Amino acid sequence: MSIVYKSEPLRGAAWQRLFAEALPDLPFHLWPETGDPAAVRYLAAWQPPEDLAARFPALEVLFSVGAGVDQFDLRALPPHVQVVRMVEPGLTAGMVEYVTLSVLALHREFPLFLDQQRRGVWAATKGLRAERRRVGVLGLGVLGLAAVKALQGFGYPVSAWSRGRREVAGATCFAGTEELPAFLAGLDILVCLLPLTAETRGMLDAARLAALPRGAGLVNAGRGGHLVEADLLAALDSGHLSAAILDVSDPEPPPPDHPFWSHPRIWLTPHVASTTHADTGGEALVENIRRHRRGEPMLGLVNRSRGY
Amino acid sequence: MSIVYKSEPLRGAAWQRLFAEALPDLPFHLWPETGDPAAVRYLAAWQPPEDLAARFPALEVLFSVGAGVDQFDLRALPPHVQVVRMVEPGLTAGMVEYVTLSVLALHREFPLFLDQQRRGVWAATKGLRAERRRVGVLGLGVLGLAAVKALQGFGYPVSAWSRGRREVAGATCFAGTEELPAFLAGLDILVCLLPLTAETRGMLDAARLAALPRGAGLVNAGRGGHLVEADLLAALDSGHLSAAILDVSDPEPPPPDHPFWSHPRIWLTPHVASTTHADTGGEALVENIRRHRRGEPMLGLVNRSRGY
Repeated sequence: MSIVYKSEPLRGAAWQRLFAEALPDLPFHLWPETGDPAAVRYLAAWQPPEDLAARFPALEVLFSVGAGVDQFDLRALPPHVQVVRMVEPGLTAGMVEYVTLSVLALHREFPLFLDQQRRGVWAATKGLRAERRRVGVLGLGVLGLAAVKALQGFGYPVSAWSRGRREVAGATCFAGTEELPAFLAGLDILVCLLPLTAETRGMLDAARLAALPRGAGLVNAGRGGHLVEADLLAALDSGHLSAAILDVSDPEPPPPDHPFWSHPRIWLTPHVASTTHADTGGEALVENIRRHRRGEPMLGLVNRSRGY
Repeated sequence: MSIVYKSEPLRGAAWQRLFAEALPDLPFHLWPETGDPAAVRYLAAWQPPEDLAARFPALEVLFSVGAGVDQFDLRALPPHVQVVRMVEPGLTAGMVEYVTLSVLALHREFPLFLDQQRRGVWAATKGLRAERRRVGVLGLGVLGLAAVKALQGFGYPVSAWSRGRREVAGATCFAGTEELPAFLAGLDILVCLLPLTAETRGMLDAARLAALPRGAGLVNAGRGGHLVEADLLAALDSGHLSAAILDVSDPEPPPPDHPFWSHPRIWLTPHVASTTHADTGGEALVENIRRHRRGEPMLGLVNRSRGY
């Protein structure tokens, strides 16, 4: 019985050291080294090898080394293989930082002020208190929930949308496609933290952006595939939306002539919102393997038919 | 006995309504209307009239409508006039937002990423966790203290410097000119929230910036006069400092050909970090006048010889 790691090598070396201490009976192989392929029960990867089922016939669990599993082709996996996304405090903390920073930047109108700076304009605005800036979070997984709580700490009235009905203390919760227009209509800043699935792909399109009040801002820290990029550009250029902060695009990076590079009211960061930390991420993986061995449910287990 | 308000008219009208309810026996005049000048005991102003002592011979308290009193010529005021700066929760909340946003932006390298964006570059960096980014706050007044507490909430190791010895739970505190080099040497991000006085003018000069570790970033939400602007530019251009977020300059705005407008690693905002809120600021003024009438110490009373 062994585990293969196929991702960023520095983190892999750190995890190999951790596993040698924490699970000394489980050989930890750094791809392309795999040991006996027939002994591989666990694979931790961002991009698994294409011939996964044939290469590792005894594979039981595929762990994503990141928060998403949308990079996996779930339908090509043997049905008995469990899929687990990364849930670990370092990843959550990084996303809370990115979302807090981005919401504060939109609330405090930094995209406007930086655009003014480059045009040599010094002009304050009236400004609205946090209590008057309604923030909505799309997605109530571990990251969305942590973002809601952090934003509430600044005094923003926060609402949240999820596919299934959820309750979050102090937040107004919306659920399902039919409540999406009401959710969007009550927001000044929209934060996307959804998983990318067949249902959420292209969700942020012209109709959804039009449902936001005039002057609203967008933060996309989900996946580039959530957003119809041309629709965002049209909404910004018509003045319907005020600004957007995007950590993702589709493809990544955008092509060289893409308007995202130069649009004065778009901030684009190179998919850095949050990454799995070597130490806390390794501990989370060890804990999940212990749970699997004891027959307990693993944290971040993906419902394969739902896609997250 | 009356009060004269000489500042932004919309807020003045709101405060006039508040005073009519809260202190109905105290006439509230909106400049240039003053009623009988000999009856004026209180003046709430950003820029007081030049002939203050002669115009209002019975003046007892000069209230700044903002957090600073550096715009007042304290030496020209009659010695018996008390000077009070604005201390109110709205002003504090706004500064906490600005400082949190700016520290997160430097920690998460947004000035680098936005500069990359404009150059068509998509390149992530290694990134450091909040626990590895040492943040220091210059000034431990109401705003500095609130900033320290907010930054601690994100996991930053926070230290602080003040003129006199202070203690803040969880923060490393430095005091006095002789401890300033040690304070600066241990920081990755420096936040200036000092009052502007004869002692602090020009404090952020080449020697102090050189005392910061290589790669450090600067947030100046104090006054433009704290910073020797040419020394900051030299430190950025030599690579010693990585980026600066500035809400203030000297003069404001900078002259049209000033490098602040175009420097890729400077973010310049038009003195918007925090403003007095009409509602909570008015309540703070009412409370201080009640205290003054009862002979109790007013919140934000300035030590005139110290200048803050």
